[in-house]
Amino acid sequence: MPLRYVEPAAEAYAFPLTVGQLLNGCLLSSRGNEIVYRDQVRLTYPQFRERLGRLASGLSGLGVEEGTTVAVMDWDSHRYLECYFAVPMMGAVIQTVNVRLPPAQVILTLARAEAEVLLVHRDFLPLAEAALPQLPRVKAVVLIADGAEMPLPGCAGVEYEALLAGASPGYAFRDFDENAVATTFFTTGTTGLPKQVSFTHRQLVLHTLANCGASGATRGRGFGVDDVYMPLTPMFHVHAWGVPYIATMLGLKQVYPGRYDPATILDLRAREGVTYSHCVPTILQMVLAAADGRGDDLSGWMMSIGGSALTASLCQEGRRRGMHITAGYGMSETCPTVSHARTFARDGLEGEAEVAALIVAGAPVPLVAARVLDAEGRELPADGRSQGELVLRAPWLTRCYVGDADASDALWHGGWLHTQDVAVIHPDGSIGIRDRLKDVIKSGGEWLCSVTMEGVIADLDEVGEVAVVGVPDAHWGERPVAVVVASAGQAVTAEHVNARLDRAIAAGELSRYARVGRVEVMEALPKTSVGKIDKKALRHALAVDAAA
Amino acid sequence: MPLRYVEPAAEAYAFPLTVGQLLNGCLLSSRGNEIVYRDQVRLTYPQFRERLGRLASGLSGLGVEEGTTVAVMDWDSHRYLECYFAVPMMGAVIQTVNVRLPPAQVILTLARAEAEVLLVHRDFLPLAEAALPQLPRVKAVVLIADGAEMPLPGCAGVEYEALLAGASPGYAFRDFDENAVATTFFTTGTTGLPKQVSFTHRQLVLHTLANCGASGATRGRGFGVDDVYMPLTPMFHVHAWGVPYIATMLGLKQVYPGRYDPATILDLRAREGVTYSHCVPTILQMVLAAADGRGDDLSGWMMSIGGSALTASLCQEGRRRGMHITAGYGMSETCPTVSHARTFARDGLEGEAEVAALIVAGAPVPLVAARVLDAEGRELPADGRSQGELVLRAPWLTRCYVGDADASDALWHGGWLHTQDVAVIHPDGSIGIRDRLKDVIKSGGEWLCSVTMEGVIADLDEVGEVAVVGVPDAHWGERPVAVVVASAGQAVTAEHVNARLDRAIAAGELSRYARVGRVEVMEALPKTSVGKIDKKALRHALAVDAAA
Repeated sequence: MPLRYVEPAAEAYAFPLTVGQLLNGCLLSSRGNEIVYRDQVRLTYPQFRERLGRLASGLSGLGVEEGTTVAVMDWDSHRYLECYFAVPMMGAVIQTVNVRLPPAQVILTLARAEAEVLLVHRDFLPLAEAALPQLPRVKAVVLIADGAEMPLPGCAGVEYEALLAGASPGYAFRDFDENAVATTFFTTGTTGLPKQVSFTHRQLVLHTLANCGASGATRGRGFGVDDVYMPLTPMFHVHAWGVPYIATMLGLKQVYPGRYDPATILDLRAREGVTYSHCVPTILQMVLAAADGRGDDLSGWMMSIGGSALTASLCQEGRRRGMHITAGYGMSETCPTVSHARTFARDGLEGEAEVAALIVAGAPVPLVAARVLDAEGRELPADGRSQGELVLRAPWLTRCYVGDADASDALWHGGWLHTQDVAVIHPDGSIGIRDRLKDVIKSGGEWLCSVTMEGVIADLDEVGEVAVVGVPDAHWGERPVAVVVASAGQAVTAEHVNARLDRAIAAGELSRYARVGRVEVMEALPKTSVGKIDKKALRHALAVDAAA
Repeated sequence: MPLRYVEPAAEAYAFPLTVGQLLNGCLLSSRGNEIVYRDQVRLTYPQFRERLGRLASGLSGLGVEEGTTVAVMDWDSHRYLECYFAVPMMGAVIQTVNVRLPPAQVILTLARAEAEVLLVHRDFLPLAEAALPQLPRVKAVVLIADGAEMPLPGCAGVEYEALLAGASPGYAFRDFDENAVATTFFTTGTTGLPKQVSFTHRQLVLHTLANCGASGATRGRGFGVDDVYMPLTPMFHVHAWGVPYIATMLGLKQVYPGRYDPATILDLRAREGVTYSHCVPTILQMVLAAADGRGDDLSGWMMSIGGSALTASLCQEGRRRGMHITAGYGMSETCPTVSHARTFARDGLEGEAEVAALIVAGAPVPLVAARVLDAEGRELPADGRSQGELVLRAPWLTRCYVGDADASDALWHGGWLHTQDVAVIHPDGSIGIRDRLKDVIKSGGEWLCSVTMEGVIADLDEVGEVAVVGVPDAHWGERPVAVVVASAGQAVTAEHVNARLDRAIAAGELSRYARVGRVEVMEALPKTSVGKIDKKALRHALAVDAAA
């Protein structure tokens, strides 16, 4: 028999999962909550809703229609939030421009996304003006003066507030296909050119719903209707982790800090009563340092950390100040959030044990399917020990790299999204990230985690700094090599290093193959522009050595 | 320009929103949690998952395939939960049979849903055996012996546990269209024959996700990963309000009480540590009475109340025992949940004020759009005073009454689902139900709430019982008539009743038209079989009087 279907009533509403539907309850349930921008703007939700209509009418007058790409270059603001909603609600596509990329790459991303209208904060005018000659598709530029009295520059036809003031609030948003693209942006991989990803209305709505449920899942401290939200992840970066959509759906008070500045952030937090933020570890460190300098009380502030690993010590530093620090996991390709660290009241975890549970990638968000695969693509057990590439399914993962069929096929090889991260899945379901796939050492059919080996070797007094990388080996495939900077006046030998590794192997901390083939001593390790050890350069140098 | 789409990678996973996807995280995140049935069965989630495969294999052997209707007649049990998942996961349709309907109607619902396989608890065997001669489509009956040693009756080919024991756990569930029907059942309206509704996989998944998020939205006490769940709304009744799907998605400990029996319910609550249940007011009253008799401590038990209005006094009675009592709103046509009462920590509500906020239908669940319409279908303001018919949009509302085009068109007239409930929407977004549409009195273009008028009139000492109904009026459309039973030895006059109503009108409690045209005194009011005042019979009697 075929699947069973019913004939809907003629006028039954089909309810597409579009971004505009997230607003259904928020105007009512916001109950006087405001959307705040620095000390400059305070909007109620009904005012916010009216501005969405004005923005859409104004953009429409500039030629924006269904399918048009509207690029935004702004700091975190109520305006950005307005664009998060109004642009997709028109059936147009918002491009959230990474203004931190080198100018040539910014221009490239605008061209590849086919941006036709640019909304540009005055701070980014020089960048936009340099780009415009190379962007023949652009038919309108809107200046964001951000409260400054300034003449309209030659490239811009109108200022953002003037555009809204002169436009009707009565834009007739209409329903359309939930599978239409709503947002687009570019990954900022450390290697190669940025790749373009895009997300549909359906994907954003499902990411919002599933993460809203998951966010209430942590002992003692969830994210809910009583919270005051302030993003500390830029809004050009993967939808500010999708939280502005959740916060708006719930009608929360929201605070947008503009350009990140520690004093402004701390002032806003104190004055507006911010209770929930999210950021990368670097921003948390910056906030903690600034708060110590000023004597701010940070207690009760919940901070969700992603982007790179949250260390136990940073988590502890936040906790010592009364903050609630938890990790999450995701990437540009995944909208982004696929897991949250969480703890359970019944476990009664305290101190180090609780911290250990809060710094892992955590429990998959509802609907997320996660597996770890070995090098041959076979599923590994969720035993907390078997390491493999983390692959994912969820209704909100980018379905391709736009215009790059080969990279898209690699991303989705076998029907699962390949994260390029090496992970274990614990018996309790939580995901533990171990290494980037390109840094893991494939030796004798096992995957050796470079990060774990480095931690063990760094334990030796004679080792100042260490990186473990794989070099090609005819028998093993790859063998680990330890590249070390010796402590002053000390020597490091392979025997000594392997003796320490053997103890870790005997203790069950490492695979039995986790011994180094040799030790290379260097004066200093090569670093990338952001200060990470450049393993790609190390592998290249060692391979050249081997060939010589 | 057209809407923008991207070309997915060839192997990109399309991720249909099907019921089986709710299991993605639960097996891992259940962390040893069990699914408990009375004192008879304890299953871990991996065991539960294995039984789903066995059940599907067994049903497949009985001829169940995509599109087959499988009817379940059981008390609340782990088996019912297994059917909630395994049957739809096969692409088949689960019919949750309301075993409390009169036998002739049970047979009618089985015939109209085209049930081909029946799963029947031994308690319902006589009913099934009487029905079978009238159900030529039925090709297999599975007995649910529920632990009893009993011979297989003539009608049944196999017992449930034997079916599972003899079947492979390795059923190959496959993906299919999320718009396929997953569940079907019949409304139990007080008038007319039951009407058939159905829900698709997509609808159930979205109901689950949106309500999971909403359930964490109440001050102090949400519904989350630390809860232990026990339904006290029958699983044949609108998916037990959808909570078994939420609880399973979150991997919670679940407790199924079988046939409702106060002692068993209280024993299970205490022994298994149940923290979250939901029920109609009658069941809560029953539980409270039984607990008082036994001296049970009910503190910490959260109970979500729906089905009929939660009164302030019942809410208070629960609170006095340390329970958390909140109302919700929904109906068979709406999957069911569309709103939850909630309070906010920052409001600092206490005592009566908090109770008043907890007994309303409450705040719309995310994605739900709610309006109140006047008799001409115009939207009324959300001012807490304007009464109109509550109409809804959400992605999980039944899209028709199966096989009844006229009723379907009326249900969805104008593109909104008509609830037939008269409500106000408060400025804070919460919904307040006032009356059933058929009981409201339409007089001079205003809607008079019969329930509110009755409350005012009942305030008079000389009034024992009162019902207010509308009778046709050439000038006003309808005018209210108060039908009263006088207190012993007292007389009731229209003047006295209207004098009391005038005071309420002056106080702003009632519309200025809320005066009665006349008072009819009766010895007793007609009642329905469940003890409610039969207003339909009253209206009929008064109309006959008027025509005479």
